Amino acid sequence: MGINYFRRDGRDTKFVLFEHMGVDRILGYEPYKDFSADDFKMIIDEALKVCREVVGPTMQDSDRQGCRYEDGRVIVPESYHECWKLLAENGWMATTKSLEFGGQGLPAIVGGLIGEFFTGSNMAFMTFPGLAVGNGHLIENFGTEEDKALFVEKMYTGVWGGTMCLTEPDAGSDVGYLRAKATPDPDSDNPRIYKIEGTKRFITCGDHNITENIIHLLLARIQGAPMGTKGISLFIVPKIWVNPDGSLGEPNDVFCAGIEHKMGIHGSSTCTLNFGENGRCRGILLGEPNSGMAKMFQMMNEARIGCGIQALGIAASAYDAARYYAKERVQGPPFTDRAADRVPIIKHEDVRRMLMNMKSGIEAMRAFVAKLLYLADVAEHDPDPETRKNAAQRVELLTPLVKAYNSDLGYLLTREAIQVLGGVGYCSEFPAEQYARDIKIVSIWEGTSYIQSLDLIGRKLGMGGGKVFQGWIQEVMAFSGKNKDDSELSRDFKLLYKAAQATGDIAMKYMQYFQEGKMSLIPLSSVRFLECFAETVMAHLMLEQGLIARDKLGKVDAESADGIFYKGKLETAKFFCRNILTNVFSRYTAIQQEDTSAVDIPEGAF
Amino acid sequence: MGINYFRRDGRDTKFVLFEHMGVDRILGYEPYKDFSADDFKMIIDEALKVCREVVGPTMQDSDRQGCRYEDGRVIVPESYHECWKLLAENGWMATTKSLEFGGQGLPAIVGGLIGEFFTGSNMAFMTFPGLAVGNGHLIENFGTEEDKALFVEKMYTGVWGGTMCLTEPDAGSDVGYLRAKATPDPDSDNPRIYKIEGTKRFITCGDHNITENIIHLLLARIQGAPMGTKGISLFIVPKIWVNPDGSLGEPNDVFCAGIEHKMGIHGSSTCTLNFGENGRCRGILLGEPNSGMAKMFQMMNEARIGCGIQALGIAASAYDAARYYAKERVQGPPFTDRAADRVPIIKHEDVRRMLMNMKSGIEAMRAFVAKLLYLADVAEHDPDPETRKNAAQRVELLTPLVKAYNSDLGYLLTREAIQVLGGVGYCSEFPAEQYARDIKIVSIWEGTSYIQSLDLIGRKLGMGGGKVFQGWIQEVMAFSGKNKDDSELSRDFKLLYKAAQATGDIAMKYMQYFQEGKMSLIPLSSVRFLECFAETVMAHLMLEQGLIARDKLGKVDAESADGIFYKGKLETAKFFCRNILTNVFSRYTAIQQEDTSAVDIPEGAF
Repeated sequence: MGINYFRRDGRDTKFVLFEHMGVDRILGYEPYKDFSADDFKMIIDEALKVCREVVGPTMQDSDRQGCRYEDGRVIVPESYHECWKLLAENGWMATTKSLEFGGQGLPAIVGGLIGEFFTGSNMAFMTFPGLAVGNGHLIENFGTEEDKALFVEKMYTGVWGGTMCLTEPDAGSDVGYLRAKATPDPDSDNPRIYKIEGTKRFITCGDHNITENIIHLLLARIQGAPMGTKGISLFIVPKIWVNPDGSLGEPNDVFCAGIEHKMGIHGSSTCTLNFGENGRCRGILLGEPNSGMAKMFQMMNEARIGCGIQALGIAASAYDAARYYAKERVQGPPFTDRAADRVPIIKHEDVRRMLMNMKSGIEAMRAFVAKLLYLADVAEHDPDPETRKNAAQRVELLTPLVKAYNSDLGYLLTREAIQVLGGVGYCSEFPAEQYARDIKIVSIWEGTSYIQSLDLIGRKLGMGGGKVFQGWIQEVMAFSGKNKDDSELSRDFKLLYKAAQATGDIAMKYMQYFQEGKMSLIPLSSVRFLECFAETVMAHLMLEQGLIARDKLGKVDAESADGIFYKGKLETAKFFCRNILTNVFSRYTAIQQEDTSAVDIPEGAF
Repeated sequence: MGINYFRRDGRDTKFVLFEHMGVDRILGYEPYKDFSADDFKMIIDEALKVCREVVGPTMQDSDRQGCRYEDGRVIVPESYHECWKLLAENGWMATTKSLEFGGQGLPAIVGGLIGEFFTGSNMAFMTFPGLAVGNGHLIENFGTEEDKALFVEKMYTGVWGGTMCLTEPDAGSDVGYLRAKATPDPDSDNPRIYKIEGTKRFITCGDHNITENIIHLLLARIQGAPMGTKGISLFIVPKIWVNPDGSLGEPNDVFCAGIEHKMGIHGSSTCTLNFGENGRCRGILLGEPNSGMAKMFQMMNEARIGCGIQALGIAASAYDAARYYAKERVQGPPFTDRAADRVPIIKHEDVRRMLMNMKSGIEAMRAFVAKLLYLADVAEHDPDPETRKNAAQRVELLTPLVKAYNSDLGYLLTREAIQVLGGVGYCSEFPAEQYARDIKIVSIWEGTSYIQSLDLIGRKLGMGGGKVFQGWIQEVMAFSGKNKDDSELSRDFKLLYKAAQATGDIAMKYMQYFQEGKMSLIPLSSVRFLECFAETVMAHLMLEQGLIARDKLGKVDAESADGIFYKGKLETAKFFCRNILTNVFSRYTAIQQEDTSAVDIPEGAF
């Protein structure tokens, strides 16, 4: 066990959950009726404790020992075993999954908010339970009764691991070109059993020595199936075959051919897996043939929201590292008082600006994640079908944003943490540089930021004939219009109004580009559009929080812990609007140039 | 020796030197009269070859083997020794230094442009010759005849290494608080010999086994000297004492107590050095007592420009990695032709946007470095004193910009390279992730970006009663005004005009803040002001290049290598103005908010 670097205090998490989103509505839903707000508070506090005492101390091991490859097997850092055991025993893996299969049955919003703590204390470690549970969920949703009985509980409770086997050496973002193939198993009388053959690459947690078995979910093409994504089927491929009675059978001809050496998350194995090299690999078809992509998308959408949480978790831990350091490290006087003695650098204006940049960015990311998961709970459980539908559409609209924007902003914020720490920020003695290395993967896996932006524009903007997006724009505009003369936040609401207008305007421009055939302008600016949209959503949430905080500030002692928190929140909302939301205007100006130089330039000039 | 990743082609370097800046004026200066333009071309080509064949192959060793600490000694990667020998033998270390002491006597602009290649092929390695030569230059400028005879040539020709010993465990950016002390040596009849005692930390190249001796330049306070930076003196402290006849004497009681483990540049040792633990460390006073900071600033200013070159070197190599990969890696069809077959990803619009972002950023950084060094040559050698003075002031004005902006933009561009490579960008199999780790130090050492912004505002804006800055603003405005109706670049010149106006306006605001006592607004926005200024300077240079390229494009075959280059340059100039320069407007909007939330927030809220 190493040093624990996890120092989240949970105050903002509780603010988001209880004071901003609120839990009353969710507590009214049937599956959550046995919970109370106090239960959630206790769970948050307990999760913080587990992260400090159990997961946090594995983070440095994760980086320094990393995963090792030896003779076809992956060895994880030693401290992972005890950590895994404790998390499994205490139900911290499948927090939001059904009680029937060993989950804790928490609402998505609570699970996501504590998920931030876990990924923030060791993201690399958390990929192992994360994939096992996500995997189990897919089997719970689409498997036969037999599949469910065999696999789900074991995957929710840490008995077996799991993976998503999509990528191949020659098919990455364009998964439709995959080559893995499945043929009906001539030796089986079960028509759902297929022989599997193929190589998968970049398989996170593809092999490890934590659990006795690993259940791969693998995309392959059944012989004769159509080309492209329409001919892809999903298979359950255990590393060790599982007998109908649940006992383990023979090894299933899945060979780990090696692991990647990476910039970060050294403690998460990234494997090349060979399936059926000896013709003895079997898989169980999950659902109908050729329905694999659609099913995998369920897991991918969850995983994309998970990425937003990962980025938040790491960036928030980087912020914690920076703020603690800034309060302790003494250096020369601040700019505004050059004659003063040396002070902790948190009194330096620029350090404070950087901390505020991190604080406001992180709190906005957290609010964003919480909003999305709140909507997911509503979409899943609200008694009114129309309410469920509207919430579900908003979840779909916001998912690519939370994935791409959080991961890219998160990377920038870890940079800021390094900068606050200065020289030691670059040294492994402090965790800032590890956070910067670990977080970088998040903008790549589960679809790059560009893939997310295409999902947003291609699939989401047009939902409901464009009404889902427009409804959102109108809501932001109404909110900012209503508050535009606020005594303290007037300029912030005006900035929000302008940003929403700009975002709406770009979306309209895209319609026009489609019509006029100016197609290249869309992918050339789509990531920037996504960023404009995300910042506007976030500013909306931050101003909601600012209003709540100001209201509460009037009711508490300004010097009390709550008073300081609310005042901090109000200033943070201002900072976000004035310093981060304002980025929308540069992007808008850039997009207005309708610049095509990147495609006009001859390829040979690169 | 590992794989060579260095693939620069040198075309843009030649464009900047011969077609944009021009060499005629410099060739007319006395010290350069024996050179010709062809000599420079040959030197560029030869440097590229050396980087590909000698330095480049050490880059991966630098990262993977790194420097090891063993019993008070630092061991460098094995391949460094041969590389050092070849560079030393062929005069690649002190390229711009005087022939008298073994330098090559090249103009600063040529030395800097090939310096980009060397740092771009292995920045960690290049810290060793870089510090030796920078160090030697300080002794050449301020040492006695005896000092010069003893040290300079050996430091220019790779016989001995060198360091700058400023930082201490408790004094970083506020170097004035250092504690290292010097007392006249009672055993010496030379009044310039002092006993040295103190601990220095983060000393780059502080120990290594490449050379038989290392000459430390160390800042310490002579007993009884004033507190703060005014009481600091500079000492030559050899690791092994150098006898008056040049032979090596006794070890000088300098002990390396350890090295840092870092995010990147593993092959550059970052040492803690204890001086005089046994009371036997001697140093030679360089120059007058208490003049140490001013002298160190000469080296620091060179080093800051050097940082701009380092950032350029690494970012440009990251761009090379990305563009080569993008031409080879085949994935699905582009957005604008969904029915097409798979294509190299360089045909994907967003990949192209990212490549263009890198290309335009890097070429602007290169133009910026070249402009600054051109001015440095003029400042040093022009026969007209007024011309020299004007050029010197511009060098001073631009130095903090090139240091801070290049290092911060460079970091962002390495992120872009990772993103172009996707999954493999995160893997050590490709060099992109190493570039991202290596480059991060550049925004920290030699003064953080914030320190640069204070230098800009505190020392540089007011030079010549503000005329130096204003003269520059006027020049940009005149240039953009003159071209505002250009048939092709009209919008770009207008953006430049607006950006210059915004930058000038912020500077005026600072005057007002000083007068009105709104002091905190300055450090809260100073880094952003620096960025606005830098991007405006760069856009100016890029548009100059665009005009030159367009002119030449009319005179060559569009399909020829030159034709493709010139067309590419013209599009790159547009891209820079429309996609990077436009960032000025968000920052300007943010600064106009005069937001003080970061200082208004209670400290306890962090």
